[in-house]
Amino acid sequence: MTTKASTPKGMRDFSPSVMFRRNYIFSVVKSAFEKYGFSPIQTPAMENSETLTGKYGDEGDRLIFKVLNSGDFLSKTNCDANSTSKDLTKKISDKALRYDLTVPFARYVVQNRNDITFPFKRYQMQNVWRADRPQKGRFREFLQCDADIIGTKSLISEIELVQLSDEVFTSLNIPNIEICINNRKVLNGMVEIMGCPELFNNIVIILDKLDRIGIDKVKEEMSSEGVSEEGISVLEKFLNSSDISELSDFLKQSETGKKGVEELQYVSENISKLGLKTAQLKFDITLARGIDYYTGCIFEVKQNDVKIGSVAGGGRYDNLTSVFGLDDVSGVGISFGIDRIYMVMEELNCFPENIDQNTRIMFANFGKKESVFCLGLLKQLRENGISSELYPTSVKMKKQMNYADKKGVEFVVMIGEDEMNSEKITVKDMKLGNQEQISISEFITKLQ
Amino acid sequence: MTTKASTPKGMRDFSPSVMFRRNYIFSVVKSAFEKYGFSPIQTPAMENSETLTGKYGDEGDRLIFKVLNSGDFLSKTNCDANSTSKDLTKKISDKALRYDLTVPFARYVVQNRNDITFPFKRYQMQNVWRADRPQKGRFREFLQCDADIIGTKSLISEIELVQLSDEVFTSLNIPNIEICINNRKVLNGMVEIMGCPELFNNIVIILDKLDRIGIDKVKEEMSSEGVSEEGISVLEKFLNSSDISELSDFLKQSETGKKGVEELQYVSENISKLGLKTAQLKFDITLARGIDYYTGCIFEVKQNDVKIGSVAGGGRYDNLTSVFGLDDVSGVGISFGIDRIYMVMEELNCFPENIDQNTRIMFANFGKKESVFCLGLLKQLRENGISSELYPTSVKMKKQMNYADKKGVEFVVMIGEDEMNSEKITVKDMKLGNQEQISISEFITKLQ
Repeated sequence: MTTKASTPKGMRDFSPSVMFRRNYIFSVVKSAFEKYGFSPIQTPAMENSETLTGKYGDEGDRLIFKVLNSGDFLSKTNCDANSTSKDLTKKISDKALRYDLTVPFARYVVQNRNDITFPFKRYQMQNVWRADRPQKGRFREFLQCDADIIGTKSLISEIELVQLSDEVFTSLNIPNIEICINNRKVLNGMVEIMGCPELFNNIVIILDKLDRIGIDKVKEEMSSEGVSEEGISVLEKFLNSSDISELSDFLKQSETGKKGVEELQYVSENISKLGLKTAQLKFDITLARGIDYYTGCIFEVKQNDVKIGSVAGGGRYDNLTSVFGLDDVSGVGISFGIDRIYMVMEELNCFPENIDQNTRIMFANFGKKESVFCLGLLKQLRENGISSELYPTSVKMKKQMNYADKKGVEFVVMIGEDEMNSEKITVKDMKLGNQEQISISEFITKLQ
Repeated sequence: MTTKASTPKGMRDFSPSVMFRRNYIFSVVKSAFEKYGFSPIQTPAMENSETLTGKYGDEGDRLIFKVLNSGDFLSKTNCDANSTSKDLTKKISDKALRYDLTVPFARYVVQNRNDITFPFKRYQMQNVWRADRPQKGRFREFLQCDADIIGTKSLISEIELVQLSDEVFTSLNIPNIEICINNRKVLNGMVEIMGCPELFNNIVIILDKLDRIGIDKVKEEMSSEGVSEEGISVLEKFLNSSDISELSDFLKQSETGKKGVEELQYVSENISKLGLKTAQLKFDITLARGIDYYTGCIFEVKQNDVKIGSVAGGGRYDNLTSVFGLDDVSGVGISFGIDRIYMVMEELNCFPENIDQNTRIMFANFGKKESVFCLGLLKQLRENGISSELYPTSVKMKKQMNYADKKGVEFVVMIGEDEMNSEKITVKDMKLGNQEQISISEFITKLQ
């Protein structure tokens, strides 16, 4: 019986041409992380269910992929007509696939706290899984690339993450990058001055939608959540403030707000002193990053020519590890969205040329004797670090050339009777189309 | 309520020092693959259950991790006291985690056959999961690194995989590597001449244990499986044959056996003509590789100083994709065991020095004004590609130096009032212990 060849919905195969592009992005991000002193860690794909549940809200809990216990899992439980899926899940599944890299990282820090020297700068590039409804740009398996600095409240970390973002997107050659920055303490202060601190979460959620729904709808929604007219007029003042110093005036009355402004000022003043390579740092009071666990500075990185949402985002959190019993570990982190970065680079043509060429030289195959002869030359090329291969069989030249073409090969080497008897090989330049006779050592020199 | 911080059994966290070593192995393997013209692909962590079940035998089926369907999975099925785990699994789980890279690759090839130019040389480095009993060196999540060439029967592929293995282990600086080679057709011929072709699988399984249980036990087990005394004496002749040519004499009577010897001879003669860098190629008639899907040449790579089993293995298979409805796709592949390679390299001290140093320079932090000054210098170092960081707070120098020490930093830069007013920075060499005053540009030159 044959099995149908298909992938589960929302999951992807990556072909060589896509993988070459993805690997290019990974290597740029990785080398930026390492240049900034971040060290790699990895955590397992599966965590104990209790590590993950209750950390992402009810919706998140539903989207976690659960792994069935091995063996005769029913022998340890009862299953009858009254069993609900939720109850049964707890009894037959004690592991689940990671939903993000942050909770596993927090678990890692607590579990390994005696071996870690703080401040701890780690990066992590691994897949996460979510049983989300698949749609354009949203997958059930995707890669997250996170860098975090934990165990220090120093704002130097915030400065570093802004510089790191600039470094990554500059190296990737992506133009028009805007790093938006705000501070949760500023938002706290604003909501305090609006006179409705108890509505903080609702206000932040509505504010986060400003881009999409517009100011009138924002006001309407806030009003129906219970924000007073006065509160809304205060909000408008904030939204119209053009820079941080103007904000500082409004926020004088709130201790938290003042602290937030100070933090923002320290970061943005130092960044403007240091200068960025290509990105722009921009203060944005409407930046809220949902109702996440952030407590201080928050960032979001956007590319201004492609409408795709943010390509990176992060912020400071004060209580990452407390849920695992370790209090007072402040941290700040950033997460790069590889899928979106990929889409932006495709659309703007940012990938280097020939990125999916992985064989520079192909030896054509003219028969048994000739191919054995080629193996020796092939060895010489590879010893000089030149990626190369021999077509494995002596099929029609058209087929061999087609293969070379599809693989983006630079030169095809042709060795027949003549070449075996002379000191010269015949080399065809696949781009220019011309052929030349050349010695192998000249050829190697040419390629280096 | 706090959650206990722990990982599921058989699953591992990788700390920075381990990740630096693992990343080093990955990069060596990856660059060897690419130098030989293999292209990267990736497949999703989850496959449809039907893609995986029935491909690895009954034991394998039991060891596959199944993923619970999302949502209210019970609403679509009945569960009562008569339900068995096996029946219920089918109804509540339609996806599973990949068990190896070979079956997903076969599925990939069939699903993407119209976009693939054959012969197709691909490599794949991804985790696989098995619900195995965890024990020393056996994990429930581990990385496989496979390279395969499919769509050609040419023995040039076999030669390439031998050369590739030599390349990988030579680059990793691992001494005393032995590449054992045999051919399933030779084994077929031998069993035919032993007079019991119907016992092929049993004989091969017993033979595979020769190393561990010795010749007497092998004979005993074969005899109890039904091999005649004459058969066993034929086996002994084979085991005592010292090289391929001697074998060729014995195998004259078997067509399959003769073909196998020819294949072995072609590969080994060409390899000895080409020469290997550091590895030894050795013919080994006892090499059987279980009752796998192999049909031609089989390989196993061993390190002779460390008793750990093979560090790589593979072979030719004729029917990889037929189970997905695509016949006659011959292929040959090799799989590198990263965990075992890691253990061998640890034991033999093969890792380069300073492999887990990822920050070369640390700026000590003497206070607010000084640290802002450092940020400018730090930027200059990073612009010159030198990985560096600033300690984020001005805590006691002892703590800062301890951090630098733990991170394996080469130089600590100290900037106080004096340095800010002069053109010189103070640099402490962490290995030699001495300090010097030097200009930043001299320092950068020194580091490059």
